Amino acid sequence: MSEWCVENPESIPLTLDKSQYQHLIDIEQYLSPLADKPSTLLILNQKIDIPDVFLEIWGHYKLKVCADGGANRLYELFGDDESARSRYLPDYIVGDLDSLKEDVKRYYRQKKVVIIKQLTQYSTDFSKCLDVIALHWNSSAFAQKVRSSTDENHSVELYDGLAKWREKLSDKSGIKINTLALGGINGRFDQTIHSISQLYQLSSNESQFNLCYLSSTDLIFLIPSQGTLLTYSKKFRHECIGNCGLLPLGRPTVLQETRGLKWDVGNWSTSIEEGKVSSSNRFVGEEKCLLKTKDSVVISVEIQMGNLKRFL
Amino acid sequence: MSEWCVENPESIPLTLDKSQYQHLIDIEQYLSPLADKPSTLLILNQKIDIPDVFLEIWGHYKLKVCADGGANRLYELFGDDESARSRYLPDYIVGDLDSLKEDVKRYYRQKKVVIIKQLTQYSTDFSKCLDVIALHWNSSAFAQKVRSSTDENHSVELYDGLAKWREKLSDKSGIKINTLALGGINGRFDQTIHSISQLYQLSSNESQFNLCYLSSTDLIFLIPSQGTLLTYSKKFRHECIGNCGLLPLGRPTVLQETRGLKWDVGNWSTSIEEGKVSSSNRFVGEEKCLLKTKDSVVISVEIQMGNLKRFL
Repeated sequence: MSEWCVENPESIPLTLDKSQYQHLIDIEQYLSPLADKPSTLLILNQKIDIPDVFLEIWGHYKLKVCADGGANRLYELFGDDESARSRYLPDYIVGDLDSLKEDVKRYYRQKKVVIIKQLTQYSTDFSKCLDVIALHWNSSAFAQKVRSSTDENHSVELYDGLAKWREKLSDKSGIKINTLALGGINGRFDQTIHSISQLYQLSSNESQFNLCYLSSTDLIFLIPSQGTLLTYSKKFRHECIGNCGLLPLGRPTVLQETRGLKWDVGNWSTSIEEGKVSSSNRFVGEEKCLLKTKDSVVISVEIQMGNLKRFL
Repeated sequence: MSEWCVENPESIPLTLDKSQYQHLIDIEQYLSPLADKPSTLLILNQKIDIPDVFLEIWGHYKLKVCADGGANRLYELFGDDESARSRYLPDYIVGDLDSLKEDVKRYYRQKKVVIIKQLTQYSTDFSKCLDVIALHWNSSAFAQKVRSSTDENHSVELYDGLAKWREKLSDKSGIKINTLALGGINGRFDQTIHSISQLYQLSSNESQFNLCYLSSTDLIFLIPSQGTLLTYSKKFRHECIGNCGLLPLGRPTVLQETRGLKWDVGNWSTSIEEGKVSSSNRFVGEEKCLLKTKDSVVISVEIQMGNLKRFL
């Protein structure tokens, strides 16, 4: 079959059969996760440059975790407003803690935030946070023990206690933890790519995580192979979504079929090396868009932050 | 051969034989290109967030080109300082000009900057700028004609005159144009990846460009396969270089041998999908570092911008 590309009108209705996709992703749920599902806001060590949106999103997430210096960024967000600062307390601060400032540590410790140090350099602060998130949601014994512990490190062995504890966990509930990460994109470039690599790593069926990044411009998540239906409300598309890009960051692959993009393609080989990438595209499917790709690809969805607050 | 990874001391002398590499890249030359080689500063449409460094670098580049709204960013950099603004005039402003503000256009036109509109949507503003840069350096007839033209579009056909003109160019001098692009990284994520994809596209032997991006944190360029020797002065490494990452953004590949990194590797398969990427690494080779990779990889080199000014 030869490859094709068509330009669509700005809004098209789509009728799709369930046999055409295996995965379903609602874009808005990355920002307002369902209340009956486990959800976590993960704050990485990068300036929080969308403060209004951040404060709105905060309330939608049940668990908040700061990765090491991410706690500095949360602390600094409130400037001199002590009252506001004390209303936005994370549940955990985790990492090797070489970035966490002393006064910030003292503040959150006094506020009873659980601060867990993990010395191993064989995993990143990000990974250490994933350990704590998995443990929190899957082991009530863990949550209870660390919270009630009077020990300096909350009864977690200092070197790699979290990872070891998590290994013992035998949860196979299959419930995914919706995790929105702030920071991680648009800082140092090798760190951005490390963040992207986490999307691929956490996409296996065994993974407990459904991960998405929110940068100051985009939502960034993975489109798994074998057909994905993306959904959104008409209003959200009109007011909040800008451009999008399908980015073959894992390897060159084939966009087998897209339906609902301004420039839909089929049997379309895509490769960063070849300079053939679907970027500056956008959704024109009224409330949904079908994406079938040979391998998983990263999608970036531009968000109009100024309008987003109305939807949160 | 099995893969290996060793941790090196913070500074190691290296003796390398010329047979070990085919390419030579001097990192500092990306910031201060040799005076006897063609060099171009390309300003893309993104806020200039390292103004001090930018103004120093400006003087090192012979040709300055703004891609469409990039001219707005240059104009805005000087606020109310009309005198400074008039000392930093680009040579060309090129693109479909849908982003260029009217007052900015008026200002630079009055200052005799060559502003060329190209309507085609089959190439990006970035590509249109590459056309003008190639023409400028390889065709004195072009440079002369557009500068002396009294025509609104400087005698360039409005739809895709630059591309057509460039096609007629038969320069095979083999001289590369050192091109430093500002912006392009850390804006909208699909645009960042589009920029990265340009690195690969311009890496072929036929390409006239030696492209590098400068973001607010990193220098980002391509390490071609078949062995590359990176060089830098001791002082520059100590004072200006931070972390680095070898990023297999084209496809999963193999780092065949590195010598002079904190964590050197050999026969080391690297893949974003597998989460196996050499990031948060750094140079410990005193004045050089050898990188041999099966396919081209992107390298990010963290730059301490605060210290950079002393080297410019």
